[in-house]
Amino acid sequence: MAMTPLLIKADDFFCKREQSEEIEFDSGMEEGNPVIIAGFGRFGQITGRLLTALNIPFTAMEINPEQVDFVRKFGNKIYYGDASRLDLLRAAHADKARIFLLAIDDAEISLKTAAIVKQHFPNITIYARARDRKHAYQLMDLDIRLIRRETFGSALEMAGLILEGLGMSRQKAKQAMSTFREHDTSRLHAHQNMHTDDEKMIALSKSSRKELEELFEQDKFV
Amino acid sequence: MAMTPLLIKADDFFCKREQSEEIEFDSGMEEGNPVIIAGFGRFGQITGRLLTALNIPFTAMEINPEQVDFVRKFGNKIYYGDASRLDLLRAAHADKARIFLLAIDDAEISLKTAAIVKQHFPNITIYARARDRKHAYQLMDLDIRLIRRETFGSALEMAGLILEGLGMSRQKAKQAMSTFREHDTSRLHAHQNMHTDDEKMIALSKSSRKELEELFEQDKFV
Repeated sequence: MAMTPLLIKADDFFCKREQSEEIEFDSGMEEGNPVIIAGFGRFGQITGRLLTALNIPFTAMEINPEQVDFVRKFGNKIYYGDASRLDLLRAAHADKARIFLLAIDDAEISLKTAAIVKQHFPNITIYARARDRKHAYQLMDLDIRLIRRETFGSALEMAGLILEGLGMSRQKAKQAMSTFREHDTSRLHAHQNMHTDDEKMIALSKSSRKELEELFEQDKFV
Repeated sequence: MAMTPLLIKADDFFCKREQSEEIEFDSGMEEGNPVIIAGFGRFGQITGRLLTALNIPFTAMEINPEQVDFVRKFGNKIYYGDASRLDLLRAAHADKARIFLLAIDDAEISLKTAAIVKQHFPNITIYARARDRKHAYQLMDLDIRLIRRETFGSALEMAGLILEGLGMSRQKAKQAMSTFREHDTSRLHAHQNMHTDDEKMIALSKSSRKELEELFEQDKFV
């Protein structure tokens, strides 16, 4: 069977002249890589693979030592252990990195890591995987803004496929998906902003059923 | 804070005259809904909410009885129990539905349900959530083609965000994401087709490490 080759060259994608200060990852950094990926499971691996295909080096942190030691073969680094450990973050040169992908599946360890990184490495930008809305709110409480809920993207793609399966044109389905995504994201931010700290705590302890019921009502009637 | 209202009307999206035979969901079916959503968790809820916003009725099946009985308020039906139970599928009128969204998170129950639905309701089209590549292969073995791995969409979005954070233009980042998605999907199908049954079993038992290593090599050298 014919394969589609993955021919991606970073040079073709980055506008070096226009943004020369931004592009430091290919200048042969000796100590630190521009990107740290904490949690190298199903989620973090996608960024790892895409960066590898583009020859952009990264440093991975993963608690499972059997998982991914081969990533070294591609010029990357990997540190084993709990990414919320300050000594490990220092060893991984979190002080030199620009981007920290927080892709840990366990919400508690994710939040603990986020707090440590925020405190000790204020210059790094955190991109965070969230398990669900509640986890997303907790990340937002730590002033993290670049968040993706881990099943949202695929679930929305699937909803679009189903609309097409029901007879909707692809263009209309994409439009419905886009409207839904914008609406849902604005709800996420609105819920966050509407709460005082005390109320937030109550909101977080609400059952998921209650929140989902509210979402259905808002989707339909707002 | 101002809300963005979600104003979606099915009438605006579906081309009724052109595809009148396709659009049966709004003709007041008494017995069955056009869509069954098995597993009403984080994944299935997105389709449920989008369909609700479009006034398209669905039937949900969910094993947790406390979760979502409110969906009835929106004109939908819900059945509690294991969606792999034939009596429950019959009660949910799987024989009348056109689309079956298999959104169960547990891979084993998902596969069991898929097999039962395929056997007893051959006319329904299954759209499946997969936990990972291995689960996707197993669904493909059941001749299911409309599959989305549950974290892939969000993980790829995140990779794109990170490329932009590194200085890549949005357009180029989207192009890289699109190339990666096509490559990854073609590998998924190629692996499936290259195996005989015995080899397939070996492939499925390979560690995720081995498979990822192959993917890295293919990304880089093919």
